[in-house]
Amino acid sequence: MIRVGIVGGTGYTGVELVRLLLGHPKVRLEIVTSRAEAGQSLADHFPNLRGHTTLCYEEPNLARLRGLDLVFFATPHGVAMDMAPELLAAGVRVIDLGADFRLKDPASYEHWYGLAHSATDILAEASYGLPELFREEIRNSRLVANPGCYPTAVILGLHPLLQAGLLHTDSLIADCKSGASGAGRTARLGLILAETADNVQAYGISGHRHRPEIESVLRRSSGQELELQFSPHLMPMIRGIHATLYARLNRSVADTELQDTYVHRYAQEPFVDVLPWGSHPATRSVRGANVCRIAIHQPRPGQVVVLSVIDNLVKGAAGQALQNMNLLFDFPETLGLEPIALLP
Amino acid sequence: MIRVGIVGGTGYTGVELVRLLLGHPKVRLEIVTSRAEAGQSLADHFPNLRGHTTLCYEEPNLARLRGLDLVFFATPHGVAMDMAPELLAAGVRVIDLGADFRLKDPASYEHWYGLAHSATDILAEASYGLPELFREEIRNSRLVANPGCYPTAVILGLHPLLQAGLLHTDSLIADCKSGASGAGRTARLGLILAETADNVQAYGISGHRHRPEIESVLRRSSGQELELQFSPHLMPMIRGIHATLYARLNRSVADTELQDTYVHRYAQEPFVDVLPWGSHPATRSVRGANVCRIAIHQPRPGQVVVLSVIDNLVKGAAGQALQNMNLLFDFPETLGLEPIALLP
Amino acid sequence: MIRVGIVGGTGYTGVELVRLLLGHPKVRLEIVTSRAEAGQSLADHFPNLRGHTTLCYEEPNLARLRGLDLVFFATPHGVAMDMAPELLAAGVRVIDLGADFRLKDPASYEHWYGLAHSATDILAEASYGLPELFREEIRNSRLVANPGCYPTAVILGLHPLLQAGLLHTDSLIADCKSGASGAGRTARLGLILAETADNVQAYGISGHRHRPEIESVLRRSSGQELELQFSPHLMPMIRGIHATLYARLNRSVADTELQDTYVHRYAQEPFVDVLPWGSHPATRSVRGANVCRIAIHQPRPGQVVVLSVIDNLVKGAAGQALQNMNLLFDFPETLGLEPIALLP
Amino acid sequence: MIRVGIVGGTGYTGVELVRLLLGHPKVRLEIVTSRAEAGQSLADHFPNLRGHTTLCYEEPNLARLRGLDLVFFATPHGVAMDMAPELLAAGVRVIDLGADFRLKDPASYEHWYGLAHSATDILAEASYGLPELFREEIRNSRLVANPGCYPTAVILGLHPLLQAGLLHTDSLIADCKSGASGAGRTARLGLILAETADNVQAYGISGHRHRPEIESVLRRSSGQELELQFSPHLMPMIRGIHATLYARLNRSVADTELQDTYVHRYAQEPFVDVLPWGSHPATRSVRGANVCRIAIHQPRPGQVVVLSVIDNLVKGAAGQALQNMNLLFDFPETLGLEPIALLP
Repeated sequence: MIRVGIVGGTGYTGVELVRLLLGHPKVRLEIVTSRAEAGQSLADHFPNLRGHTTLCYEEPNLARLRGLDLVFFATPHGVAMDMAPELLAAGVRVIDLGADFRLKDPASYEHWYGLAHSATDILAEASYGLPELFREEIRNSRLVANPGCYPTAVILGLHPLLQAGLLHTDSLIADCKSGASGAGRTARLGLILAETADNVQAYGISGHRHRPEIESVLRRSSGQELELQFSPHLMPMIRGIHATLYARLNRSVADTELQDTYVHRYAQEPFVDVLPWGSHPATRSVRGANVCRIAIHQPRPGQVVVLSVIDNLVKGAAGQALQNMNLLFDFPETLGLEPIALLP
Repeated sequence: MIRVGIVGGTGYTGVELVRLLLGHPKVRLEIVTSRAEAGQSLADHFPNLRGHTTLCYEEPNLARLRGLDLVFFATPHGVAMDMAPELLAAGVRVIDLGADFRLKDPASYEHWYGLAHSATDILAEASYGLPELFREEIRNSRLVANPGCYPTAVILGLHPLLQAGLLHTDSLIADCKSGASGAGRTARLGLILAETADNVQAYGISGHRHRPEIESVLRRSSGQELELQFSPHLMPMIRGIHATLYARLNRSVADTELQDTYVHRYAQEPFVDVLPWGSHPATRSVRGANVCRIAIHQPRPGQVVVLSVIDNLVKGAAGQALQNMNLLFDFPETLGLEPIALLP
Repeated sequence: MIRVGIVGGTGYTGVELVRLLLGHPKVRLEIVTSRAEAGQSLADHFPNLRGHTTLCYEEPNLARLRGLDLVFFATPHGVAMDMAPELLAAGVRVIDLGADFRLKDPASYEHWYGLAHSATDILAEASYGLPELFREEIRNSRLVANPGCYPTAVILGLHPLLQAGLLHTDSLIADCKSGASGAGRTARLGLILAETADNVQAYGISGHRHRPEIESVLRRSSGQELELQFSPHLMPMIRGIHATLYARLNRSVADTELQDTYVHRYAQEPFVDVLPWGSHPATRSVRGANVCRIAIHQPRPGQVVVLSVIDNLVKGAAGQALQNMNLLFDFPETLGLEPIALLP
Repeated sequence: MIRVGIVGGTGYTGVELVRLLLGHPKVRLEIVTSRAEAGQSLADHFPNLRGHTTLCYEEPNLARLRGLDLVFFATPHGVAMDMAPELLAAGVRVIDLGADFRLKDPASYEHWYGLAHSATDILAEASYGLPELFREEIRNSRLVANPGCYPTAVILGLHPLLQAGLLHTDSLIADCKSGASGAGRTARLGLILAETADNVQAYGISGHRHRPEIESVLRRSSGQELELQFSPHLMPMIRGIHATLYARLNRSVADTELQDTYVHRYAQEPFVDVLPWGSHPATRSVRGANVCRIAIHQPRPGQVVVLSVIDNLVKGAAGQALQNMNLLFDFPETLGLEPIALLP
């Protein structure tokens, strides 16, 4: 039984972490912090938790957090890099669901997040928490940068072909569709139902923080220079990311070889599901579950289209964080992540 | 470990049963039948099940079903009453999620369902599977009539006041709002998204099959004659029932006494959650969970409004069926029903 | 050609007024004010207006507004009562889409809106802008209180039976379902899509500002004392109100007599559509149109259920305001209000 | 005043045609046919039409249709090509909203629609009803092939750059998102709300009938050979298409030159709205309106992303058909198409 805490527990990532941690047999969730809501019960905030926990939010307090085995940060960028060094020094492991340790280059971090990196000394040691690509690094780390939701769907979708060296790397495109929970639990006019329901709209076409994250990870994992056009779109749905990925083959490859590349790459992965050739995965098939479902198409020779879906709050955030926790503490990787997606 | 089967596994109630049964530690799901889809794998039909089961649909076959401990019927009315007698005779217990055993009066059944009842001999012995009202009957029965979704929300909402003898019983009103999954997994024009999204519409205002079910159960449980206006409405959402219940007190009752009536009545119930006085429960607070959340209001002296929400597929169908199964087999009542509602 | 202005043009009521006024052949929209957005073009704010107007928001300025024939207030309560007296004094007519002139009793206004009424001298002369009940008063007034959205649906639905003296008046119930645009264009956490989609929830069950408005108007129009339980619910849709109205007859009345009561009462009304007996009107059948569709049921002798639907932004706000404008200026009452509802 | 008819008036394209034609000052809609619903009133079928028309569906009857000036076909493919020759011979003009005359090559038609073309003699003379590209051809034709919804959004979005010769033509991609009304008014399981709401899913990635239509029109309009990957996705919304178009420049082009290319190309077009550089158009900004809004991005040198949105039932079907009708009969091109989009 490990003792864990969450810094920043009032957002969607936070409540999803709570939901999953309360169901994990090896975890005792002891602390959930929120400056704004300190003293209030979690269940008052998130009525789905009524009857499942009596925890109350408390002020973030390093002295108390230092007594834990693991702290999750479900905070906006900038918080984790301020608090993590002291926790690590005290022997606490850290999984940051925010963006502070995803970009290895401090200059890039500052460019995209508008903030100088305050913990560059530990930036290098942070593992990138995508177990399917970096399992051993994660196991051996004490600080995990949990991937962004879009990057999870895109990287898992493109990695096998890049690793196999089959792609032209100058024309990758990720056209991504996300549910509105991906924009967070914030009172923004652009997110109210009367503005977003029955509507589809792109955003950040000319530049989005997840592009450098995707590019840098794919460069590292494939050993190739590459460029990707990343196009996020806001969908009138709550959960789910659908990534439609376009790439061109650098040589003639049969459909069966393409399919086999994915099947073999992910054969041992409990949380990646390669669908039969030519399928069209639905985001609802992963709602609430820690799984990425992938399907591959070659509509014309040389043109590959990969479809990759996840629940942005589970495999794209809290579920993947639990998967990383399981690796850090040598629990079975699937522990606490068994629930089946909710359909319909 | 008990061995169970599902007759009729291609609807929403069926897939929800499968989802929950696969997570139940004392159950082995062995047979799921479907005439139309015999031979096909469940996971091909319901992609959320991929990786969780290798079961295939099979033709309903009494010889095979007779070997089980328990059979669930997730079928349209008329099927269970034909097959149940033979299963019961073979010692198999039966939980019917359809309507065949909910109305004790065969004439009423024929009136509302347009079909003569073919198993009147076992109709009398069927327990009504609402554990909060009929727990002991259920425990001692071999045939359980699982309640309708609307009746579950309405009966749990009105029962405490009726039992306490506090209501005028000639003016009960249940204004109910249901997600579209309540209409089943059927290809009907009136259910397609372009007809139902961004729309609210009542149906069956002048008469609906759930009215006699609610009335007869409330009469029995309260020992009072009563009449209820039942008004169902179709909502542009997938899951959830919101029952807004109107009743008039037959004497002056303080708010605190009303609240206490509910709190005490349901104090020991693991799946009924009485909210603080004057709350407004949200259907999303129960999405995917086997719970009914209830709040009480007295806007003007004598006028009571009770709000009651459930997930129509869980506490309103498959979850309640598992709860009944737990009672039938002396498992802890909450076993397999721990999952927290999915929010957002 | 009359010259009109809108004070407060950045909300949904405001943009809907602009949409309708731009299509009205006898109107020149000259001024739309907004303190916050002064100087910005309307079309930048509301992209549906691109190509239809070059107007920019301007600061509210009484000197400029005094030169108009008519000013609409699409503002929160409190604004119109401060500015209207001076406009009326200058000969400008005023239609207030806010709540300042709906309640005739200043004490009631102060109770429900938390603000002392600052223009009690003109409160008495304000007509209540529901043409179907108060057409002549409106024609002869210079200040119109445009009804609330819920009151429009409820009053039109209950008035014929009350006027005919057929109802017990102590047990009226209005169970109302509204699209989220009714909550306004405001950045509130409780309105974001991830909180409101796939969800149904009541609010204000114990008391809501529209209840005294409905009650006082129905008392006046029917000449009877009465009490009404008003229960609003937030729906996961953008536009539309569905009012489900419950009343008990004070004598035996045949279905045909009930139907005739409505048909005759509204026979000359261009914007009230009485459906065939026993129908179930859909909110989508009025989306974008200035019409109220009504259907009547008598599920059991003595129990009447009336279903009444409107578009909250059209017949419930901006469309009705144009209808009132047409009356004030002796235009044909339907001018500019011909568009057919958008379905699907 | 011209006399027009609609063959096939029970689908969404049909009802939208009726809505728009009833508001057109130069048109008398005389006949709407439906085999299945003959004798029934349109308003019974589509409640938004109540009070606006007393027309009833009638059996399709060439003798009666021959007396009209214009017949619209809002039918599945295969119907128009059977009936059009006789109508043309009688001097009636024809606008086919189906697919029968969109592909000039009968072999391609047969390949994609699974039907031999039965009117190849008139196929050649059919104009392609996209006025922005083929206005004069349309004016001079008696048979118009109204474009598909996706092709309208994609072609208008890509044409200016292709015409200007700025693109590599071997790597065009159209990632398209469509509301569910695009799938038609049909009782299909895959379209019911419980399957499609809160869900995003691609379909037809490996091949879709609109790809050859787009490719052949763009080849003709640009005089260049080209290939396009077309990827449609089903959105949980009712109306709207969002096309995200990817292309690579064949030379270095400044952002301002790209923007000017669009602004100049569409400067005289009443129904194409070029947004400021770098904008993100929303489908809701065109809901119910006959307009295509377009925005251009160059996220990295050489990589162009064009965003193009339409209402699939208006500019993508019925509205465009009226625009073509206006051309055929020398009416002002915008007549009857003035309504502003419904927002929110």
